[in-house]
Amino acid sequence: MALLLFLSSLHITSGGKLLVVPMDGSHWLSMQSVVKQLKQNGHEIVTVAPEVTVHIKPSDDLYTLKTYPVPFTQELEEHFVSFVNGIFNEQPFLLRVFTDPLTPCGQIVAEYLGIPSVFFLRAIPCGLDSEVLQCPIPPSYVPRIFTTNTDHMTFAQRVNNLLMYMSEFFLCGFFYSPYSSLATEFLQKDITIAELLSHGSLWLMRADFTFEYPRPLMPNVVAVGGINCAGGKSLTQEFEAIVNASGEHGIVVFSLGSMVSEIPMKKAMEIAAALGTIPQTVLWRYTGEVPSNLANNTRLVKWLPQNDLLAHPKARAFITHAGSHGIYEGICNAVPMVLMPLFGDQMDNAVRMESRGAGVTLNVLEMTSKDLSDALKAVIYDKTYKENIKRLSELHLDRPIHPLDLAVHWVEFVMKHKGAPHLRPAAHDLNWVQYHSIDVIAFLLAVVLIVLYISLECCLFCFRKCGWKKGRLNKKSKSKSQ
Amino acid sequence: MALLLFLSSLHITSGGKLLVVPMDGSHWLSMQSVVKQLKQNGHEIVTVAPEVTVHIKPSDDLYTLKTYPVPFTQELEEHFVSFVNGIFNEQPFLLRVFTDPLTPCGQIVAEYLGIPSVFFLRAIPCGLDSEVLQCPIPPSYVPRIFTTNTDHMTFAQRVNNLLMYMSEFFLCGFFYSPYSSLATEFLQKDITIAELLSHGSLWLMRADFTFEYPRPLMPNVVAVGGINCAGGKSLTQEFEAIVNASGEHGIVVFSLGSMVSEIPMKKAMEIAAALGTIPQTVLWRYTGEVPSNLANNTRLVKWLPQNDLLAHPKARAFITHAGSHGIYEGICNAVPMVLMPLFGDQMDNAVRMESRGAGVTLNVLEMTSKDLSDALKAVIYDKTYKENIKRLSELHLDRPIHPLDLAVHWVEFVMKHKGAPHLRPAAHDLNWVQYHSIDVIAFLLAVVLIVLYISLECCLFCFRKCGWKKGRLNKKSKSKSQ
Repeated sequence: MALLLFLSSLHITSGGKLLVVPMDGSHWLSMQSVVKQLKQNGHEIVTVAPEVTVHIKPSDDLYTLKTYPVPFTQELEEHFVSFVNGIFNEQPFLLRVFTDPLTPCGQIVAEYLGIPSVFFLRAIPCGLDSEVLQCPIPPSYVPRIFTTNTDHMTFAQRVNNLLMYMSEFFLCGFFYSPYSSLATEFLQKDITIAELLSHGSLWLMRADFTFEYPRPLMPNVVAVGGINCAGGKSLTQEFEAIVNASGEHGIVVFSLGSMVSEIPMKKAMEIAAALGTIPQTVLWRYTGEVPSNLANNTRLVKWLPQNDLLAHPKARAFITHAGSHGIYEGICNAVPMVLMPLFGDQMDNAVRMESRGAGVTLNVLEMTSKDLSDALKAVIYDKTYKENIKRLSELHLDRPIHPLDLAVHWVEFVMKHKGAPHLRPAAHDLNWVQYHSIDVIAFLLAVVLIVLYISLECCLFCFRKCGWKKGRLNKKSKSKSQ
Repeated sequence: MALLLFLSSLHITSGGKLLVVPMDGSHWLSMQSVVKQLKQNGHEIVTVAPEVTVHIKPSDDLYTLKTYPVPFTQELEEHFVSFVNGIFNEQPFLLRVFTDPLTPCGQIVAEYLGIPSVFFLRAIPCGLDSEVLQCPIPPSYVPRIFTTNTDHMTFAQRVNNLLMYMSEFFLCGFFYSPYSSLATEFLQKDITIAELLSHGSLWLMRADFTFEYPRPLMPNVVAVGGINCAGGKSLTQEFEAIVNASGEHGIVVFSLGSMVSEIPMKKAMEIAAALGTIPQTVLWRYTGEVPSNLANNTRLVKWLPQNDLLAHPKARAFITHAGSHGIYEGICNAVPMVLMPLFGDQMDNAVRMESRGAGVTLNVLEMTSKDLSDALKAVIYDKTYKENIKRLSELHLDRPIHPLDLAVHWVEFVMKHKGAPHLRPAAHDLNWVQYHSIDVIAFLLAVVLIVLYISLECCLFCFRKCGWKKGRLNKKSKSKSQ
């Protein structure tokens, strides 16, 4: 989760002051477009990041970068490499989950400085976003993250979804406790992470219902899914030449995201063999050792302009790790996908695209060369995949305003009005018992019971008056007769 | 509730076909602006209405009007007059509620023709809109209609709110049963009104959170509150002259809505006396007999350009019946209000504005001349009212796209894509038990109970094996010793 914090300004037209506390990795890449537009609108921007980062670099024309020392230096890159290598060796579930580095440090700073904040995110693990937003998301049709359920679940899947929902209470308390301690220590007051994040004024969520399943939203959530997909840039001469040389068969774009560029040689050779079975030219972002069986149709590149390549009419398929950014680029450009999820929310993302008939999902650990080859041929030659992704693309792009303009508008809104309190639900002022009306229901039940009790007592009283004497008389006469 | 039904067209650019089934009254006035814009975009529009209407009139340049015969003719106007007169004599609660003529006939036609539909509405009585949309609205902080609760309720108000929520189940089944019967008969299949309305593709709701309290929304709801407030038209010479003559004191705009223009003479005289106590020029929309005590500062007019007058810098206060259209015009133009709610949702509307410090609410039946005079002086001279309405106005107008453009976009979206199925939550495919996960919870409880039972049986078994013999021996030895 990334955060924008505002040193609010009264006069937005003469430019405001903006403090940006971003997350590294792909999260920063899409957030950067918002920062760029805000800079163009005349705001003064300061970005705060650790000394050692993957993507957050100084940018004199966009923002002033302030760095803080961290207890790791060159190890960071090594950490990522070992993390990525770990993906290709099966790891226990929890280890994969909790390496996703979503931290709420920015909001601690906002709280300390007493300035309003805007969040920019896809989601927070454990469904903490919904909890914090006071947004009801029934586990009967809203799949929990990491379950790979869709919105149409069997009974067994609903059991699994509810169990996940319940277990998150325990897992997440444990997961977020260091941050709660940090916040409590830094702010000198007892505060939970949910309470801390509930002070965020506005949530720019990278959501769109061509990708997400429809579910309730709160008024302070603005859906900006597809914000990273700015089409229309022309290719460099190098890439243009490769694409043009692909002829009628066109190209396949293959990238496992900005954090993965090397994979074990055995897996690389399996993949290379599969890529050789199709007539398309494959552009594969890969920096590792060249597999010895690499076919002539496959071009290894250290970096590729993913969105611009997908936007090219010759793009036939997209092999992706199913990160949300990549998937939105696939949707924007209507390119059917072969999905190879690696970690985090990627398994869920892949299921979503597959459930919409816009792609084929493969288990990167278990798949054979033939599986990949079959999947590629399916998405390229079975017209339904293209039709489905084209329909999603048309729905996604038919919007009244571009997500980037929407995001910039709402950031400036929060700056101008010093927050957005009119969008904050009163649910924040209720405790759990009150929110669920449990006290009211208990009161009404008590009233009903008291009324019943009094009615019963009245009946008994009447019974005693009229019938009991008779009964006692009967009893006495019985005793006598014994 | 009004409906737009589409004879969908593949080529939106060459114009689509649009069937409009509107509700009469103020509902139609705000919907007309959408119809006008759609006509300008080149769509062919047919409007269906009863032979006798208040506001829906033929309009050759906008649409073709098709009328159908109704069993009332001139009585309609008389009905409205007697209805309005009824307001000024106290009536039982239910009678006032159920005269609000919100009917779902349009959707029956859409269902019959098999075409997608867009709803244009503020709300449906009984919270049927939320029920149909599968939108959770916790009664702990979302006030039910007709309760005059705010989003911050005392315990007693929460009890009242929950009771209203529960009673609506019974009242509404009764209220909507004639429509269910009509739909079942016409469509030749068993269908409830909730099921019928759940087939609507998109809901254009006249909501904005400067007026509504923040609460969950569904993805197929588009908030277009303030759509009726198109500012900037200049006043006619007649009105311009009156406004200019008002001098430094400015004007007060007074209208009780398009359906009310006469009130009982006693009440009219009380009002006239109050209006005479302020130095502002009052423009009062009133067609009844002139009160004999009418002061010099009060001008009676048969009709007034309400929004244009409120948009004038000389507007100091707005006396309104608290219909949602009028309130949005008050918010748009930042004019503090004196609210005199008459029927329907107007009591709730008035409370909302009052709870935001943007107006004073009066009970039109009980108020005295002094009450009105005091209320007017308060909203005109106590700066907090002006400051609060100004803040609401700034929040309301700071939006990335005008509600009218938003409405037109989404109507065309539904026409172009033949609906919006990607925005329909899967909750529609679950029954009540499934939606609330009651079957899953029962299953998990059963599993827990079975596990407990088996554990207990195992313990008992062990106990029997190890302890019972000993126990029996003890017992035997005890018996012997006795």
